[in-house]
Amino acid sequence: VVGEFVDSLELADAAALLEELAEGDDLDVMRMLPLHDQAEIIGYLRPRAQVDLATRIARRDLAKLMTAMSHDERADLFKQLDEEAQDAILPALTKAEREDLRRLASYEEWTVGSVMTSDYATLAPELTAAQAIEALRTQALDAETIYTAYIVDEARNLLGVVSLKDIVTARPRQRVADLMDTEPVWVRADDEQEDAARLVSRYDLLALPVLDNNDRLVGIVTADDAMDVSEEEVTEDFHKGSTVGPLETSVAESTIMMLYKARIVWLVLLVFGNIFSGAGIAYFEATIAAHLSLLFFLPLLIASGGNAGTQSATLMVRALATGDVRPADFGRLLGREFIIALALGLTMAAAVSAIGIWRGGPEIALVVATAMIVIVLAGAILGMCLPFVFNKLGRDPAAAAGPLVASLADVLGVLTYFTIARALLDL
Amino acid sequence: VVGEFVDSLELADAAALLEELAEGDDLDVMRMLPLHDQAEIIGYLRPRAQVDLATRIARRDLAKLMTAMSHDERADLFKQLDEEAQDAILPALTKAEREDLRRLASYEEWTVGSVMTSDYATLAPELTAAQAIEALRTQALDAETIYTAYIVDEARNLLGVVSLKDIVTARPRQRVADLMDTEPVWVRADDEQEDAARLVSRYDLLALPVLDNNDRLVGIVTADDAMDVSEEEVTEDFHKGSTVGPLETSVAESTIMMLYKARIVWLVLLVFGNIFSGAGIAYFEATIAAHLSLLFFLPLLIASGGNAGTQSATLMVRALATGDVRPADFGRLLGREFIIALALGLTMAAAVSAIGIWRGGPEIALVVATAMIVIVLAGAILGMCLPFVFNKLGRDPAAAAGPLVASLADVLGVLTYFTIARALLDL
Ligand SMILES: [Mg+2]
Ligand SMILES: [Mg+2]
Ligand SMILES: [Mg+2]
Ligand SMILES: [Mg+2]
Ligand SMILES: [Mg+2]
Ligand SMILES: [Mg+2]
Ligand SMILES: [Mg+2]
Ligand SMILES: [Mg+2]
Ligand SMILES: [Mg+2]
Ligand SMILES: [Mg+2]
Ligand SMILES: [Mg+2]
Ligand SMILES: [Mg+2]
Ligand SMILES: [Mg+2]
Repeated sequence: VVGEFVDSLELADAAALLEELAEGDDLDVMRMLPLHDQAEIIGYLRPRAQVDLATRIARRDLAKLMTAMSHDERADLFKQLDEEAQDAILPALTKAEREDLRRLASYEEWTVGSVMTSDYATLAPELTAAQAIEALRTQALDAETIYTAYIVDEARNLLGVVSLKDIVTARPRQRVADLMDTEPVWVRADDEQEDAARLVSRYDLLALPVLDNNDRLVGIVTADDAMDVSEEEVTEDFHKGSTVGPLETSVAESTIMMLYKARIVWLVLLVFGNIFSGAGIAYFEATIAAHLSLLFFLPLLIASGGNAGTQSATLMVRALATGDVRPADFGRLLGREFIIALALGLTMAAAVSAIGIWRGGPEIALVVATAMIVIVLAGAILGMCLPFVFNKLGRDPAAAAGPLVASLADVLGVLTYFTIARALLDL
Repeated sequence: VVGEFVDSLELADAAALLEELAEGDDLDVMRMLPLHDQAEIIGYLRPRAQVDLATRIARRDLAKLMTAMSHDERADLFKQLDEEAQDAILPALTKAEREDLRRLASYEEWTVGSVMTSDYATLAPELTAAQAIEALRTQALDAETIYTAYIVDEARNLLGVVSLKDIVTARPRQRVADLMDTEPVWVRADDEQEDAARLVSRYDLLALPVLDNNDRLVGIVTADDAMDVSEEEVTEDFHKGSTVGPLETSVAESTIMMLYKARIVWLVLLVFGNIFSGAGIAYFEATIAAHLSLLFFLPLLIASGGNAGTQSATLMVRALATGDVRPADFGRLLGREFIIALALGLTMAAAVSAIGIWRGGPEIALVVATAMIVIVLAGAILGMCLPFVFNKLGRDPAAAAGPLVASLADVLGVLTYFTIARALLDL
């Protein structure tokens, strides 16, 4: 009954359910399922749950299971096992499997190689369409996809790519060589995984061929894995933009120590960065002492510069990430930002001068309104430029966001505000 | 020669090239290409470029082109044309096309219906695998995909889904009814487009069937369009998190007025919100006047609360969006956050007390260090809770980020700092 119930679930849901089950129960449920389903389900488990389950499966069964898993997922699992477990499993695999596993596991985490899979379907160029369908039929069980097939020569150099759609719609005696696209989109195994995701999205691919530096086909990145990569990269950008450093695993699975380490570095750096704001205040102590009511507007003014700057920075960071704007657009965008920022500054100055008159009279209102315009303008321009500067310096623009911009805007704000105040009030 | 060159390009690149060409040249290039390529290229153009080109194409040619476009893309284009152009095109289409166009164009922008396409492949349940391949062959030219086919009854109720892979690997005389998955993952046309993207990603689908409220099949969402939806939704979350309101189009294509409107609302709201920080300062004016050196640390302390809070909020916003953490995890996460925040606060207190001793002596250092611990703890807890509170209130957690948290942390920071200072210094 339990077996039937699990059978009626989507495999991703079965995996989620398995994570909730008590130790032992999960293995019992797994044993009721066909090997192929077991292999897919284990691929859907979260990293920690995967390792936890794998280490409780008997070595021989685990080897059998890994043989049935898709090549990318078994390499991911293998990498996470400790050396002892790795050594125990390897002898139970065929030589080809061992080599495949070692090769896929050898790529660094951020590379295309680390997300590609090697169980792609291949076709010989001289096959007819009818023969190609037969060939794909025999490869279907082991291949990650048969909707795109790859044509390689003896050296595994990629000659072309053909879709099952083109094979099915061709005349039965047409040759694969005449059907294939000889200039397919491809990516290098050493490129960043993000590049693969971007290509899949841009060209609406189901799978993207991966070449090594000698132009040999070494794997494919499938659309589902490209989506996972995008999600990961977006998470990384969100974290970077709020000064959270790289996390090895998901937030839910991270330990307290991992999160502490990822967060403390920039927080302390920003503490030291913020000393400059304090120094600015100290420098203007005489002006402040003479007009203590100026302090009422200090948090408001420096926050406004940071807020406008955060908006600009985020707009640019994201637009650069999606390709919506390009580094070459900088000049045009700067002009536009100037006008927008001025309009924002004027509106906010109007809002704040109302408060200024109420709190401190027309003189204070004038100081505060003038400061607001300058601060918002400076904050917005700063926020807009920073992602481009980071990009130019070969750094990730994603880091040029929120807290960093706000801290810079704080310094600018303090200096601007009290300079204007001293000029207008201490005549 | 130009035709050959464009022919060698991927269609997405041809579209990008077309956007760069002068008016007139783009039409000349288009005319050199087969109708089917023209139809795909126009689908790859950005909204504004698409409308611009479409309005320069002769009405009869445009109708022919739209007939060749995939149904989702032509509905998107149709929606953007002005009424006059719409009315001019409709008569040139068949009745079925008109109805399809009107129906797809009728869904609101944020719905699944607005991103689905109606050119899916269907199969009768009584067909054999061999017959099914023939049936798909005849539908291949007009269908968005033949890798997933849909089995519906006379009322268009969805009976099942079958993959071309299962058809190809089946025995030739097996019936579609025995091959199909009768419990496929599906989504409602009125659901949010985000839900469709999430399902495609979670279940690694190539296409997701869309049902109306009477369980009739009305369309499918393909994986490539699901990726586009994800990208859009992520952009929206980035913008929300930095208090940028919804934009109708891409940042590059937005006008100055659109950007101004999207940005000004929250900036002004936050100006008024920040008055509370100023009121806090005014309340403690006596303490400040007696110890002006306290001001040195004010920007630093309030920024630290905001920075720690921004980190926590972003971590939660993103983890909630990806399903990495669920609302039910709140209690457990709060306990963890408390420990992390305490550790962060202690470390930052150590950093700032070094500065405190140097700037103001041990008494000031004690005040500043104590305030830092409380402020960071409060900021981080606040930032962590806010996304959950928003979620509970049925609002988008994505808005519970950066500037909002920073402004709240500013108020908390001012009150905390000077309360502690008065207690420790004004004895
Ligand atoms: Mg991997
Ligand atoms: Mg090509
Ligand atoms: Mg795409
Ligand atoms: Mg995979
Ligand atoms: Mg997967
Ligand atoms: Mg990145
Ligand atoms: Mg649409
Ligand atoms: Mg199912
Ligand atoms: Mg997936
Ligand atoms: Mg589409
Ligand atoms: Mg598309
Ligand atoms: Mg959303
Ligand atoms: Mg601030």
